Amino acid sequence: MLNINLKEDSSSALYLQLYKELKDKIKSELEVDTKLPPIRKLAAAVGVNPATVVRAYDMLADEELIYKKVGSGSFVAPDRKIIQSKNREDMLKHGQIKLAESINFASAAPSTDLFPVEDFKYAINQVLERDQGEAFSYQKSQGFLPLRKSIRKYFTKRGINSSLNQIQVVSGAQQAIDIISKILLDYKDQIIVEDPTYFGALQAFNSRKADIKSVKMEQDGADLEEMESYLKKNEIKFFFTMQNFQNPTGINWSRKKQIKLLELAAKYDFYIIEDDILSDLYYDQKRVNNLKEYDEQGRVIYIKSFSKVFMPGLRLAFIVLPETLLPEMLEAKYATDISSGGLTQRAFDYYLREGLLDKHISLQRDLFQKRYKLMKNQITEHLPKEIKITFEITGGLYFWIKLPENRDAQEIYEKAAQKGVVFSPGYLFSINKKYSNYFRLSFAAVDDQQIKRGIVILRDVYNDFRGTADNYDYSPLL
Amino acid sequence: MLNINLKEDSSSALYLQLYKELKDKIKSELEVDTKLPPIRKLAAAVGVNPATVVRAYDMLADEELIYKKVGSGSFVAPDRKIIQSKNREDMLKHGQIKLAESINFASAAPSTDLFPVEDFKYAINQVLERDQGEAFSYQKSQGFLPLRKSIRKYFTKRGINSSLNQIQVVSGAQQAIDIISKILLDYKDQIIVEDPTYFGALQAFNSRKADIKSVKMEQDGADLEEMESYLKKNEIKFFFTMQNFQNPTGINWSRKKQIKLLELAAKYDFYIIEDDILSDLYYDQKRVNNLKEYDEQGRVIYIKSFSKVFMPGLRLAFIVLPETLLPEMLEAKYATDISSGGLTQRAFDYYLREGLLDKHISLQRDLFQKRYKLMKNQITEHLPKEIKITFEITGGLYFWIKLPENRDAQEIYEKAAQKGVVFSPGYLFSINKKYSNYFRLSFAAVDDQQIKRGIVILRDVYNDFRGTADNYDYSPLL
Repeated sequence: MLNINLKEDSSSALYLQLYKELKDKIKSELEVDTKLPPIRKLAAAVGVNPATVVRAYDMLADEELIYKKVGSGSFVAPDRKIIQSKNREDMLKHGQIKLAESINFASAAPSTDLFPVEDFKYAINQVLERDQGEAFSYQKSQGFLPLRKSIRKYFTKRGINSSLNQIQVVSGAQQAIDIISKILLDYKDQIIVEDPTYFGALQAFNSRKADIKSVKMEQDGADLEEMESYLKKNEIKFFFTMQNFQNPTGINWSRKKQIKLLELAAKYDFYIIEDDILSDLYYDQKRVNNLKEYDEQGRVIYIKSFSKVFMPGLRLAFIVLPETLLPEMLEAKYATDISSGGLTQRAFDYYLREGLLDKHISLQRDLFQKRYKLMKNQITEHLPKEIKITFEITGGLYFWIKLPENRDAQEIYEKAAQKGVVFSPGYLFSINKKYSNYFRLSFAAVDDQQIKRGIVILRDVYNDFRGTADNYDYSPLL
Repeated sequence: MLNINLKEDSSSALYLQLYKELKDKIKSELEVDTKLPPIRKLAAAVGVNPATVVRAYDMLADEELIYKKVGSGSFVAPDRKIIQSKNREDMLKHGQIKLAESINFASAAPSTDLFPVEDFKYAINQVLERDQGEAFSYQKSQGFLPLRKSIRKYFTKRGINSSLNQIQVVSGAQQAIDIISKILLDYKDQIIVEDPTYFGALQAFNSRKADIKSVKMEQDGADLEEMESYLKKNEIKFFFTMQNFQNPTGINWSRKKQIKLLELAAKYDFYIIEDDILSDLYYDQKRVNNLKEYDEQGRVIYIKSFSKVFMPGLRLAFIVLPETLLPEMLEAKYATDISSGGLTQRAFDYYLREGLLDKHISLQRDLFQKRYKLMKNQITEHLPKEIKITFEITGGLYFWIKLPENRDAQEIYEKAAQKGVVFSPGYLFSINKKYSNYFRLSFAAVDDQQIKRGIVILRDVYNDFRGTADNYDYSPLL
């Protein structure tokens, strides 16, 4: 019988405690297809009502951690069967399960153990105490006013000045991109993006049927000569850019190019959408600058998300808009989802005002800096010299890796995935499936051991392809 | 008078243009506490409908650029006082109090004192205890699996059967409409809506540049002959409908028309979007039927929101989709905002599993039934006979009121608003500003005393217009 202890005096209900204990055991010690104790037996052993066990089992079944066989009981679910399944829904789940078991260099979102759950829970309860039902009423489409005030202050400290009117709360950076597209893009409108760029943005632009041109990325920002020669012949609505630790290249725009870009925007009359996800994660001495700081003419639409340095599941982001776009923004946000969630906005506002966000980001920066150094070392040390980090980077969450021209990252991806290592193949980041010999290697969701093990696995997979399974470099994976 | 020029041919709506012009003047030339022109005067001077001025003024007030004084008009807001105010919360409350002081027949959202805050707070804390950081990680785009299971069960009990795959979690019904539009609508595609209908839906369809045809509502549903004669000559993508307690008419579709509608959908090959917000609020003996219950061919895309019977600020709704649309849905949800908030989904799931939603809805039904009866009585008793409840209704949250043909609901609106009573003028619910002599009177956010007082105020305002200030019917307002 399983060794399980429940606390009568816990604030957590008995069936929830039981569910958690069982879940831990399934994840850590129980083999696939192990039979769980019969309901009455477990109930008697643990000292709870059978109904309590039923509820716990039901929850585990709902999460597909266990399966039920009529007449014979409940069993630990076999991941493998799921993988073989053709069913689309199962495929998706397969993705989730694989991720949990594997070394995940694909995700740019931090792993859940880094989340400040206790602090945020405190914030939520404070806010519920304070605001009661108001926290669950419709918020203004523009966002909860005190949050707009506190984030404005936060931005001001970072050199981004705006009036309160210019700040719009949205449900994450992806929604920001989607809503801005709604406002600015008509059928077949032309825009420019960085090449390579974030695929979620491409999806949003494609959904508005935009005509997308891309401009090559260099070590210090996009190729502005290429851009200007295009601008001379074409009228564009906007340029979409990540100025710091760009996704996926990791590069920063130089001050010089930032200024030049603003000049181009004025000369050729277009907006710039600056998507700022990672500028907090700088690992050399000094902070990096956002384009918005230099925007004197109101050309830059600034999007700020904390998903990658805080908690992505909150679905919260901010837009600093040029004044002229405000009415359209309000209308578009309303037509999109009326407003973002009230409780989330209020709790984040509280968290921000208490100074907790700054502290948390500072911790994250230290942590990710260590991982960044480790991963860089591991890449340099273990991967063959012909595999290169494409650009020098000094922050963020990933490296943009280049294979020799004749190599296909997708092939490596498939072999590596079989060994439990996943990353993001390069073609995902382009409008025309370029970058087949590139991939993005993220260190957001992996610990030190996983970084070490994962890089060695990648090396072995690559060498297998090269036909030279050189094991000279093999080291114990501890 | 202010010097203002609007362009009829601009792509920006007239009220937005007006709003922008006024805002510029407030920021540049108008002194604090300057009185803005009366609505009709400005409307006449600029050459627009008074409703246009009202909307522009409303937006300015929302941004706290102007303030309204009951009985004397709108004034430029005193920035300085706002800035000097130390207490942010007071400011908010000020805003809140303003609403609370008025009698709000406009809002179809329940007032915050009806929210089950304590129960939901408990659910949140249980979930945080159970799931820790996972509650704040990215959720699957399709939604948190256990929630999809529990809502599926909930639907099954109500005669709506679906596979788990067919259930998509979204951030509120408005987002459901927006995302479905994204999937189904190309530039200039034709659709049909009910006439009158929900303005938020019209906004979403307009944003996709749909070609919108509307079909007249009758006591038992839309005029299907009118619809079929249109279908014979036009190919439409979908028909948007609220089958129960329709917004704003309050009517229910008859079983006969429901079946006929499904036949038309099969014959002319289109989807039906059923937006179900209020079917839980039936006040005669028996529950009402959703179209989706009879949908054997997978023509109906069913949207279910609990915002109006639970807590709107949660921003949570569900779509039951035909299987064929599933891949597009996942992609569209991803491109829209990746996924809905994790904590909200998990807490709602908990709340649902505990059976608390059913209990709460049952309480709401009893409460709103009483208000419904009271309001119906008050209307019949106090309003002049020439003001009519347009349709017989047996549930929901509002009455669709008809004035004599030559009366303008907007005029009444302005006078009533000065006396603290607001409602929704009819033109809001149409694609072409029809229904000028209609308005929607909601009892979602008013208590018994407010209903009594509000109806009498409406009567007096109306009689003032009629030029017959008959006081014979005056009764003490208790």
